[in-house]
Amino acid sequence: MTASSPERPRPRQLHLNAFLKPPGEFLAAWRHPATVADAGVNIRHVIELARTAERAKFDAVFFADLVGVPFADQEVLSRVSVVNDSFEPTTLIAALATATSRIGLIATASTTYNEPYHLARTFASLDHLSGGRAGWNVVTSLNDAEAQNFGLERHLDHELRYERAAEFFDVVTGLWDSFDDDAFLRDQKTGIYFDEARLHRLDHRGKHFAVTGPLNIPRPPQGRPVIVQAGSSDAGRALAASVADVVFTHHPDLAGAQAYYADLKARTQAAGRNPDEVVVLPGLSTVVGRTISEAEDKLERLTALLDPRVALADLAYWLGGVDLTAHPLDGPLPDLPPSNQSRSAQRHIVERARAGGLTIRQLARQLARDTRTIVGTPESIADHIQEWFEGRGADGFNVVFPYLPDTLDDFATLVIPELRRRGLFRTEYTGRTLRENLGLSRLPSRWSALQARSLR
Amino acid sequence: MTASSPERPRPRQLHLNAFLKPPGEFLAAWRHPATVADAGVNIRHVIELARTAERAKFDAVFFADLVGVPFADQEVLSRVSVVNDSFEPTTLIAALATATSRIGLIATASTTYNEPYHLARTFASLDHLSGGRAGWNVVTSLNDAEAQNFGLERHLDHELRYERAAEFFDVVTGLWDSFDDDAFLRDQKTGIYFDEARLHRLDHRGKHFAVTGPLNIPRPPQGRPVIVQAGSSDAGRALAASVADVVFTHHPDLAGAQAYYADLKARTQAAGRNPDEVVVLPGLSTVVGRTISEAEDKLERLTALLDPRVALADLAYWLGGVDLTAHPLDGPLPDLPPSNQSRSAQRHIVERARAGGLTIRQLARQLARDTRTIVGTPESIADHIQEWFEGRGADGFNVVFPYLPDTLDDFATLVIPELRRRGLFRTEYTGRTLRENLGLSRLPSRWSALQARSLR
Repeated sequence: MTASSPERPRPRQLHLNAFLKPPGEFLAAWRHPATVADAGVNIRHVIELARTAERAKFDAVFFADLVGVPFADQEVLSRVSVVNDSFEPTTLIAALATATSRIGLIATASTTYNEPYHLARTFASLDHLSGGRAGWNVVTSLNDAEAQNFGLERHLDHELRYERAAEFFDVVTGLWDSFDDDAFLRDQKTGIYFDEARLHRLDHRGKHFAVTGPLNIPRPPQGRPVIVQAGSSDAGRALAASVADVVFTHHPDLAGAQAYYADLKARTQAAGRNPDEVVVLPGLSTVVGRTISEAEDKLERLTALLDPRVALADLAYWLGGVDLTAHPLDGPLPDLPPSNQSRSAQRHIVERARAGGLTIRQLARQLARDTRTIVGTPESIADHIQEWFEGRGADGFNVVFPYLPDTLDDFATLVIPELRRRGLFRTEYTGRTLRENLGLSRLPSRWSALQARSLR
Repeated sequence: MTASSPERPRPRQLHLNAFLKPPGEFLAAWRHPATVADAGVNIRHVIELARTAERAKFDAVFFADLVGVPFADQEVLSRVSVVNDSFEPTTLIAALATATSRIGLIATASTTYNEPYHLARTFASLDHLSGGRAGWNVVTSLNDAEAQNFGLERHLDHELRYERAAEFFDVVTGLWDSFDDDAFLRDQKTGIYFDEARLHRLDHRGKHFAVTGPLNIPRPPQGRPVIVQAGSSDAGRALAASVADVVFTHHPDLAGAQAYYADLKARTQAAGRNPDEVVVLPGLSTVVGRTISEAEDKLERLTALLDPRVALADLAYWLGGVDLTAHPLDGPLPDLPPSNQSRSAQRHIVERARAGGLTIRQLARQLARDTRTIVGTPESIADHIQEWFEGRGADGFNVVFPYLPDTLDDFATLVIPELRRRGLFRTEYTGRTLRENLGLSRLPSRWSALQARSLR
């Protein structure tokens, strides 16, 4: 009996990822009196957050990343916390691996400024360290400030980034398959440590990389760590459909989420994969109160802490690095050049501004307050989750926390019990690995697949 | 009062680093019945080893690294454990950071196939995760098998490697100084998270790297993680004298160790540094018994486990990748071309062969058995340590363990108590950080030094 192949089908269950960004997702979270001053580099605090998420049976915790400092404006930069004051994610989840036992551990790493050999090894090592709980959020990097830390003036164009990402991914997964699952005999009597026939040198020679291999670590416990992708552009969706186990996405309304969900599942099937093997998790930010007005008050107190300069800079960043200071704050959003960063983010924001007839100032404030933040009671938030889940807009959620630890504690102790009462969420981990808890198959090595085909 | 600036001078104390290579340094260690089968990727086992070293008050544990598989010969490769079956070192020491509390954590990382921004960030993160216990063993990579995993056919020439290493190191340390120690105000009232004036962009434009910065993490708790270097060539010694806090070295006899020690301390002084700020740790491998003959028996049983093919391949590797199979095993070592790998390793081995009049077979066996392994009683091993320490051949030792956990347990429970009886080794950690326990100063930021100079 294995947890990944249950004897009888269970009702479809929610998957919940805890997107941790201590002291919180909200740009002024650090000014909230409930947060911890050095939250981003305080390992005891981050361990407590991860353990809270584990007690609540979240599938995983996740840490995002940038390899640079995104705001050029120092006055703005000096008023925000997260970008300069947090651990590097792969070392952080390694540290959490020995401080937790069941929860998945996902870190972002870029295919643009890394070498596939290093990254393959890092995530294989993380998967071994955690007993099969590691996940890799594959990003392509979209910020000039990052490029300038790696010898380039500007970041790579959208198409080139995705071309490189696809080859990078192929090399990484090939390296993970260097040794078959059963290659290591470790036979003290014969002196044979591993079976030569079960070692495969990659010998990759491509456009972007030349990597001989083999990777110097056994195949990861999960076969491959869980692959997370967040691309919403056409190239991003194509990559997700072909390789992702989990997709992080963002939608302002259920109709948009349903359209994305249907499109991605169809693309996954077209790519020759079982659409159930892609777990679609829209972002969900919540502020919970015993009453709606208590929750509204909480969010209002938080929003009041935000400096208007920071709000405006954040808006400009998400629009693709445009300079908004030349336009009147109380006028409409000007027409913008296509973003070379996140095209879908720009489109969503522009649509929001046009639909609401918002001025730049209003838009900045609304974005900061985040219309994706659901403010409500445990019941109303569970209603929202259930509607999206049962309406096939989501397989679960990538839960974002405006300020920590409070909004995580509230979600864990108020919302999750309500989801359980409705039979939507687990009361205990059912699997041993992250892949098993997500209901995903363990992929065979590319070599065993070839062998199986040649035996037919 | 800080531990790094004691009120009264203590007698000079040994420093001990535990060089862990589970299941052991000896190539056939894994065949010893006392070892753990999957020792290299068994985190519970490695945590136990680190905790044993911590209970014994070792300054640090250290994990070496290769980013490739060094043996071309698969028959040999399939008979050894460590090269394919161990964690990646930076993720490993991150995992150990939360499983230990006082001991230093040192990992190897190469300046040749990495980007300085990534490495600066990784080790800054490790230093924050561990509360100031991280160390970086700077290597330049000397193996073609590594080069071939990063788009190159052959590894870089010796001089180019060291040139790149020097610039790499300059960038990394510059990035660590991006924020002054007191830059982060995190003032909830004013909304100022950090003081703009205490942020320094690197703007490095050099021969090998262009890195704008800043690094997106506060200055490491130790100012800079402890820098370890092992170069014995002229370029290696020069690099060590200018930047190293700790030097790993190897010497077959005390006279050689003394000459190296004196040379390195003189070079350090000539580089404008206090020679006490470089801790010289020769390698020391021990097998301990209640009597000499009991210890000899232990080593003999271990040596008997080694396949002769593995011994010969190991010799060829250390000589610089030469092919010895064309020469008669019972003939003398032929003249060799200068190694483009470790020149000092080649020289030591050739000297040993010539001095002993050894055949290739004898040399391979002796190297495998390792003449650096001291076989003895707790008293005789303590005599050896004391002689080297008081004779200024060493400030302590980089202790290597032929097979684990036994030879570590023996060293911790038999040798260390004897060293304490002689007043040579601590009974408790005296510092909070690795740097403090090593008796090293915390370096000021390069910017505060400039500021101090401009104020004079």
